Amino acid sequence: MTISSFQPPKRTLMGPGPSDVSERVLQALARPTIGHLDPAFIGMMDEMKSLLQYAFKTENELTFPVSAPGSAGMETCFVNLVEPGDKVIVCQNGVFGGRMKENVERVGATPVMVEDDWGNVVDPQKVEDALKANPDAKFVAFVHAETSTGAMSDAETLVKLAHEHDCLTIVDAVTSLAGSPLKVDEWGIDAIYSGTQKCLSAPPGLSPVSFSERASEVIKNRKTKVQSWFLDMSLVMGYWGGGAKRAYHHTAPVNNLYGLHESLVILQEEGLENSWQRHMDNHLKLKAGLEDMGIGYVVKEGERLPQLNSVYIPEGVDDAEVRGKLLNDFNLEIGAGLGALAGKVWRIGLMGHASSEDNVNFCLNSLKEVLGK
Amino acid sequence: MTISSFQPPKRTLMGPGPSDVSERVLQALARPTIGHLDPAFIGMMDEMKSLLQYAFKTENELTFPVSAPGSAGMETCFVNLVEPGDKVIVCQNGVFGGRMKENVERVGATPVMVEDDWGNVVDPQKVEDALKANPDAKFVAFVHAETSTGAMSDAETLVKLAHEHDCLTIVDAVTSLAGSPLKVDEWGIDAIYSGTQKCLSAPPGLSPVSFSERASEVIKNRKTKVQSWFLDMSLVMGYWGGGAKRAYHHTAPVNNLYGLHESLVILQEEGLENSWQRHMDNHLKLKAGLEDMGIGYVVKEGERLPQLNSVYIPEGVDDAEVRGKLLNDFNLEIGAGLGALAGKVWRIGLMGHASSEDNVNFCLNSLKEVLGK
Repeated sequence: MTISSFQPPKRTLMGPGPSDVSERVLQALARPTIGHLDPAFIGMMDEMKSLLQYAFKTENELTFPVSAPGSAGMETCFVNLVEPGDKVIVCQNGVFGGRMKENVERVGATPVMVEDDWGNVVDPQKVEDALKANPDAKFVAFVHAETSTGAMSDAETLVKLAHEHDCLTIVDAVTSLAGSPLKVDEWGIDAIYSGTQKCLSAPPGLSPVSFSERASEVIKNRKTKVQSWFLDMSLVMGYWGGGAKRAYHHTAPVNNLYGLHESLVILQEEGLENSWQRHMDNHLKLKAGLEDMGIGYVVKEGERLPQLNSVYIPEGVDDAEVRGKLLNDFNLEIGAGLGALAGKVWRIGLMGHASSEDNVNFCLNSLKEVLGK
Repeated sequence: MTISSFQPPKRTLMGPGPSDVSERVLQALARPTIGHLDPAFIGMMDEMKSLLQYAFKTENELTFPVSAPGSAGMETCFVNLVEPGDKVIVCQNGVFGGRMKENVERVGATPVMVEDDWGNVVDPQKVEDALKANPDAKFVAFVHAETSTGAMSDAETLVKLAHEHDCLTIVDAVTSLAGSPLKVDEWGIDAIYSGTQKCLSAPPGLSPVSFSERASEVIKNRKTKVQSWFLDMSLVMGYWGGGAKRAYHHTAPVNNLYGLHESLVILQEEGLENSWQRHMDNHLKLKAGLEDMGIGYVVKEGERLPQLNSVYIPEGVDDAEVRGKLLNDFNLEIGAGLGALAGKVWRIGLMGHASSEDNVNFCLNSLKEVLGK
C-alpha cells in the first residue's frame, strides 16, 4: 500500500454546507502553526472574540468558537445549561430540532416537544400553549434557520414568549449567522451556537457560541458537574475567558482558527448588514430563475432562508442522477434532501462566499442543461 | 474597531505540542474545500483509515480521527465504553491520568486510582494489586506517554496484566503515536486515542482513535445510550464506517483532515520505524548537550520519552524570563511545567517534523546564550 497526497477536485459548493471557501481564507489556513499559549495567538483570540461579537450583534463576554463542529456547539449549550430533571420545550420542524431532543434526553432532562411540519416555521402559538401547559419548563430551544428544510422561524417572537414565561432560550443559528438578520442582544437570545462552514465560508470544524449574562449565571449556579469534560464551560473559559493569562484546557485547533479569523475579517470589511442583503439579493435571482423552470419552493414565501433554497425535485426526474451529473460534469455540488424530505427535494445553498450572481447563473445554467430545459 | 488579517510569527515549536508543521502539510490545508459527502472526500477517508491503521500498527476496523482535539478523543473512549456504575482502574502519574479520572466520574462510573509520583512510570505491581483488590473492575486506563512529565510507561505489560484480569484497556497515546514504539495489535490495546499536533506534526484539532473487536462488542452491547450525541460511536460510524454510502452525522473538518492525511503520507514515506528511530537519535543528541550544560532530566533513564524532554530548571534561573527570551529573541517555543511541576521544569519537545538535528543544535545554542553559558 502506498498512498499519495490528496488532491481534491475544485468544486462549486452550493449545497447545505460546507460552502465555498475563498482563496483568502484558504491561504490563512496555511500560515505557520504557533503555540496555543503563544502571546501572539492570545492576541488573535481576543480579536476573534470581538469579531464574533460583531457577527452575533452581541456584547456577551462569553463569546468564542468551540473547538469542534456545530453539533458540538449544540451539545455545549445543552450540557452546560440543562441539568438532569430539567424540563426543556424543544421545537421541531426539521432534522435539527430532533437532534436537540436527543441532547436534552442524554443530559437526563425531559423534552417537551412542539412539532411543526417539515418546511413550516415554528408556530409561536404552539410554543405559547406549551409554555402555559408546562409552567415548570426552564428552557425553550429552537432552530432559527432549519438547514434541513430552508425555513426561518421568528426568533425574536419566540424568545419574547419564552422570557414572558421565565424560560431561557437556546437557539440554533448554524445556517443563519451572517446570512440573515440575527440580533442576539436586541432579541435577548440566551445561548446560541453556529457553524463556520455556512455563511461565514470558513472550513468546517469550529462552532461559534455566545451566552448571555443570564445564561452565564445559570452555568455558574449549576448543582451538578457538566457531563462533558471537553465541553465544560467552567474549564474552557480558563482558556478563552479574557486576560493575558490563559490556562491550558485543550489544544485549540490553531490553523482552523486562522481561517475563521480571516473569514470574520472579510465579513467586517463587507459589513454584516451588507452580507445579509447580498444573501437576499442572490436568493431572489435564483428564485426567479428556478420559477422560470417550473421548480417550486418547499417553504412559503416570507419564511424562506435566502441562503438555503429547498425546492421540489420536478416529477419524473431522478434525484441521484441529476446531482451526480452536476457534480461530475460541472463540479457543482447541490444538496440532497434530509430525513422526511430525502428524495423529494434539493437544497441549493447560496452561503457566504458562494452567494454570488456568478454562482446563481452557473447553477441555473447547469441545471437547465442537465434537466434538458 | 477594525481588525486586520492575522499574520502569526514564524516560530520553532519545541514545546509539548503543537509541533512544527511542515510546509507540505500547511499547503495541504489550503487545498479547496469540498463537501463531506463528496465521493472524492469519501475516497480520502478510506485512505485516512489505512494510514492511521499503519501508524497505530493495527487492523482494527474502527480506526478514524475524531473531529476534535485529543481531549475529545479521550472522552470518545470513555463515554462509549464505560457505563454508569462501571469500575475503572485509572493510573495517574501526571496531568492526563487526572483527566481520565474526571472522565470516568462524569460518566457516572467509579474510578479506582493507582497513583505514582509525577515523573515516574506507572508501576505494574500497583496495577496488579489494584486488579486483585477489584475483581469487578471492567477497564484499566493509563497514559502511555505522559506529556506533562515525559515518562513512558510499559504499555505492553500493563495491557497484559489487565487482560489476565478480564479488563479492557483504554490507552492515551497522544504523545507517543509515531514518536515511540507503539503496537496496538501486538500489545492487544482495546481502545486508544491520540492527537495530531505531536509526533504527526499536523495542526491540532483532530484525535485519531482505534477500537479493538472486543471493545467494539462492548460498545454494541451497551445497556445505556452514550451520554454525548456528538461522540456517540454508533452514530459516528454511520459516517466513518466503510462503504460507499455514508450517512451524515456531523460535518467533518474537511481541511484539517487534508492536513492530517498529508502528514500520514509523509510518515508512510519515512517509514514508521524510521520515525521512531529519528526521534530517539535526536533525543540522545539533545540529552548530551543538556548534560554538558548541567541540566538534568526529571525522568529516569530508560523511562524517558524521546519526543518530550522534561528537565529541571537550573537553580537561580527565572523560568518565565528564559522562556520569554527564547520566544522573543529566538522565536523558539519550549514548554513550561504543568500542574505539580509548574515552575520547576521545562518541557522540550522533539516531535515529528520538529525532531531534527538542526532543531537540537538551535535549541542548545539558544539556551546557552540566554543562560549565559
